Amino acid sequence: MIIDSHGHFTTAPPQLAAWRDRQLAALGSPTEAPDPDELVLSDDELTEAVRQHQLCLMDERGTDLMVFSPRASFMAHHLGDFSASAAWARICNDLVHRVATLLPDRFAMGAMLPQSPGVDPVTCLPELRRAVEQLGAVAVNLNPDPSGGRWTAPPLTDRSWYPLYEALVEYDVPAMIHVSTSCNPAFHTTGAHYLNADTTAFMQLVQGDLFADFPTLRLIIPHGGGAVPYHWGRFRGLAQALGRPDPAELLGRNVYFDTCVYHRPGIDLLTEVVPAEALLFANEMIGAVRGIDPRTGHHYDDTRRYLDRTPHLTAPQRAAVYAGNALRVHPRLAARLGR
Amino acid sequence: MIIDSHGHFTTAPPQLAAWRDRQLAALGSPTEAPDPDELVLSDDELTEAVRQHQLCLMDERGTDLMVFSPRASFMAHHLGDFSASAAWARICNDLVHRVATLLPDRFAMGAMLPQSPGVDPVTCLPELRRAVEQLGAVAVNLNPDPSGGRWTAPPLTDRSWYPLYEALVEYDVPAMIHVSTSCNPAFHTTGAHYLNADTTAFMQLVQGDLFADFPTLRLIIPHGGGAVPYHWGRFRGLAQALGRPDPAELLGRNVYFDTCVYHRPGIDLLTEVVPAEALLFANEMIGAVRGIDPRTGHHYDDTRRYLDRTPHLTAPQRAAVYAGNALRVHPRLAARLGR
Repeated sequence: MIIDSHGHFTTAPPQLAAWRDRQLAALGSPTEAPDPDELVLSDDELTEAVRQHQLCLMDERGTDLMVFSPRASFMAHHLGDFSASAAWARICNDLVHRVATLLPDRFAMGAMLPQSPGVDPVTCLPELRRAVEQLGAVAVNLNPDPSGGRWTAPPLTDRSWYPLYEALVEYDVPAMIHVSTSCNPAFHTTGAHYLNADTTAFMQLVQGDLFADFPTLRLIIPHGGGAVPYHWGRFRGLAQALGRPDPAELLGRNVYFDTCVYHRPGIDLLTEVVPAEALLFANEMIGAVRGIDPRTGHHYDDTRRYLDRTPHLTAPQRAAVYAGNALRVHPRLAARLGR
Repeated sequence: MIIDSHGHFTTAPPQLAAWRDRQLAALGSPTEAPDPDELVLSDDELTEAVRQHQLCLMDERGTDLMVFSPRASFMAHHLGDFSASAAWARICNDLVHRVATLLPDRFAMGAMLPQSPGVDPVTCLPELRRAVEQLGAVAVNLNPDPSGGRWTAPPLTDRSWYPLYEALVEYDVPAMIHVSTSCNPAFHTTGAHYLNADTTAFMQLVQGDLFADFPTLRLIIPHGGGAVPYHWGRFRGLAQALGRPDPAELLGRNVYFDTCVYHRPGIDLLTEVVPAEALLFANEMIGAVRGIDPRTGHHYDDTRRYLDRTPHLTAPQRAAVYAGNALRVHPRLAARLGR
């Protein structure tokens, strides 16, 4: 079995973006905001939207199932206020829930949260509870920078985030630490902001003591852990200088990296440096890098090709990266699959 | 010959920090600001400050010469206004100039600039000219985020930076793109902000067309290029999607990475992915990671140990990484050495 732990509904029918455009145009004049019920998408439209894209590539690559969350770059928590984010999160979560319900063998729902810059994360609890209890979410995306590249939120180890961690622990649901669009012209969204956020989040966890308070909390850092595995010696040395435990102690217990690294040498390094039990197969699909590498004739983001060939995984380790770890990290997915 | 292209005066006598503390305490009441002349350091004090630290390690590691600039984390361009930065840059540059004059066989000066958030970079020109013309700087450190982690400056491709590039081209002097201390609690300075800045700067260069305007400008991205080499497939794929040239075209012509990557697998990846002609040997010494790896008994930042062993460099390539490239990138250093 092969489970992709990081996929987004980047291919939703255009009515979704049109609704969002109307919502954003009405910011500041709430009476003109569109009603969520005005967004009407048929089951066929939703099924087609993934069939032509994600499912096609999943079949090509032999992926059985994908943890499927709303489009990360569209979360755009920095736009509008909490109530705008709340309506938007609700709509986006309902859509990925419907896809996961229509194609339950292929998709499991990941939820977005209605975060808003400067707003207490506790406000996200009702949507988190709805997503898990009513929609069947098996994972949640948590944005460490709802300001969209201004980085005004406190580190993930700050107590203001704790209500979310308490709920995640209660439900035994992991969070993927995933930013959204950068509104800061310094940061290209997928070429800088995403990777920076991954590196930043990991270092926050090295500095803090979050898992003493939440020993069973599981956080997934996407995009191969940002710069972390490549600079693993730096992180070990910094942890040592700070009097913190070896950062390896975080891995495979509380912190996981996905395999969204889009060339063979990168995957070779990732699998050499990071223990297999801390790796989750993923393609970030259909995502940041959609093209075909003219040198190989294959999609850059077809990470299975690199993982199948890396010398640093034994067969059981490879199976763990492809599915076993994902089932362990997402117990609600395992339960649904009867594992 | 072995040249370290990235070293900082992190070991200056404590009087320097004391002067800075007084300067910062007097911000807002300029009449109380200390006079630069109140900082008195003897030649012996300066020589001792490097002899016990940098020189010791350089001798141990076989490094002949180091490009030596003011302590990066102390630049702290976000503190005070332009006039505070101007006085501070002048003092710090004078000190590294004196070290390079006292020990001309071992140190070549790199300069800091008196940047200040929101202030036009053109204001840095007088100090840049003084550093090169009067102090003999062979390189300059350029901070892409003078706000210290708020990232309020425009991308490096913005025309507001052009006066600096014009001067760098005129002098044939490279710039190392190097941030300073993060005042943003989200970013650990050396564990997140430094690496994020490297990644961010490279992606800005991929997006823009800076080197069409400055074909001979040379920028050094430190810390092994941040996340870039590890995610090289991502950057190639993004460049392709953006209709930009293969990012490899930047390397070895306009953009260089140093080798400050502190474990063997990282250096193996760097030397496999990045052409040797784009790599500059460096230890970022005495810098971010000063400790000894208990697993190996060697300093994490002793990158020569990894470079000597990587299978991805031929002997001539290794020589280029150790010295030839540095002489090519720093023509004023080559001239001083009579090469």
